[in-house]
Amino acid sequence: MTTPLSTADELADTVKVLAFDIFGTVVDWHGSIVREMQALHPAVDGDAFAIAWRSGYQPAMARVMRGEQGWTRIDALHRGILDEILPKFGLAHLTEAERWHLNHVWQRLAPWADSVAGLTQLKSRFTITTLSNGNISLLTHMAKRAGLPWDCILSAEVFRAYKPHPNTYLGVARTFDLEPAQVALVATHHDDLEAARACGLRTIYVERPLELGAARPKDGTPQPGNDLHTSSILDLAQRLGC
Amino acid sequence: MTTPLSTADELADTVKVLAFDIFGTVVDWHGSIVREMQALHPAVDGDAFAIAWRSGYQPAMARVMRGEQGWTRIDALHRGILDEILPKFGLAHLTEAERWHLNHVWQRLAPWADSVAGLTQLKSRFTITTLSNGNISLLTHMAKRAGLPWDCILSAEVFRAYKPHPNTYLGVARTFDLEPAQVALVATHHDDLEAARACGLRTIYVERPLELGAARPKDGTPQPGNDLHTSSILDLAQRLGC
Repeated sequence: MTTPLSTADELADTVKVLAFDIFGTVVDWHGSIVREMQALHPAVDGDAFAIAWRSGYQPAMARVMRGEQGWTRIDALHRGILDEILPKFGLAHLTEAERWHLNHVWQRLAPWADSVAGLTQLKSRFTITTLSNGNISLLTHMAKRAGLPWDCILSAEVFRAYKPHPNTYLGVARTFDLEPAQVALVATHHDDLEAARACGLRTIYVERPLELGAARPKDGTPQPGNDLHTSSILDLAQRLGC
Repeated sequence: MTTPLSTADELADTVKVLAFDIFGTVVDWHGSIVREMQALHPAVDGDAFAIAWRSGYQPAMARVMRGEQGWTRIDALHRGILDEILPKFGLAHLTEAERWHLNHVWQRLAPWADSVAGLTQLKSRFTITTLSNGNISLLTHMAKRAGLPWDCILSAEVFRAYKPHPNTYLGVARTFDLEPAQVALVATHHDDLEAARACGLRTIYVERPLELGAARPKDGTPQPGNDLHTSSILDLAQRLGC
């Protein structure tokens, strides 16, 4: 009689590639934008500004995916939203150079405290890749600056579709000649994980209670559909035996 | 009166991204295949086998680029050539598992002695990416195994065209929102460098006299069109002030 494998052990034996959502899961977009605004424009409510900027993101991608706009990188979508919200925060006077610089805050986002250590441990056993709606250059510059040790940068830009389109999740499996069940998506967003699961990928939730700032704690209640529920990327590495 | 910048200084100031050819430039395909054949099938002439396998590569890509065959990854092109040449080397009896394993030698190719150190130095100042006809998984596994510290894995697979198609060279510039002259291709093949130059990229030659094995020393005479002519990737890093 053999002892049945735990879910974590079975996952570690089956999965070859861990694909990571980035904004919120690996890096702290809210805190980074708040800090950047405090430094550059201290009179502005950085928390409200970060929330407003991020809120424009899903509708902008939806316009592209409905075909109302041609294929557009996130850098350009972020810039469009920025230009829309600046007047509402009293920043209509920003120059082109200032707007360009501020828009690139998305590649200056700080990793959560456990991200670099956790990814470094996971990399010893798994192939670790981004799977983000962020464009390749954004993700590359972010990784270089933050020391995120990706094996590979995969993005909506490679698959010409944004998550949650199936081509993104299945694209990772195809890229690595794997079955979908040999790939796990790691994310702090249940809608992303659900869409990946519908494509046959394994799913791992990471708690990021402060993703939306201290004023808006996220509900981190474990959802039954996920293969693993973890408190951090370092916790994930330990659970997977790295 | 200011002292004019040397070409290397001007290049280091202008270029943001260094895109590397891989097979021959960063890794030693000939030596690696010879060693693998010596270990697996010592009765076979490993030198002739390596040359025969590599010789099928350009014609196979040309068939795809002429539209006679749909988009095909290099892993599959390599496998097709392998199946063709095995009988000529008395290896028609290899099983599917043996063929699969042998075909993946391309992701087990060893870097030249200076590659990892040179790339690590260059990475401190430049964004370093692959620009290879090899597919993403091949390049990712190779980098992981050999310790090649890429910032980003770009490939013919991302741009759906093989080098020397302009979409590959210009694709790197577009990916990073750069002018072509802010990207340099680093390669040991003059035809690759010429095609990149025709697209407006800067070009850097790396001498790899043993690329085709000790029996076929390459002519490494500097060509006037290249911006730099270097003896190794480590030499390149020193020339660019890293």
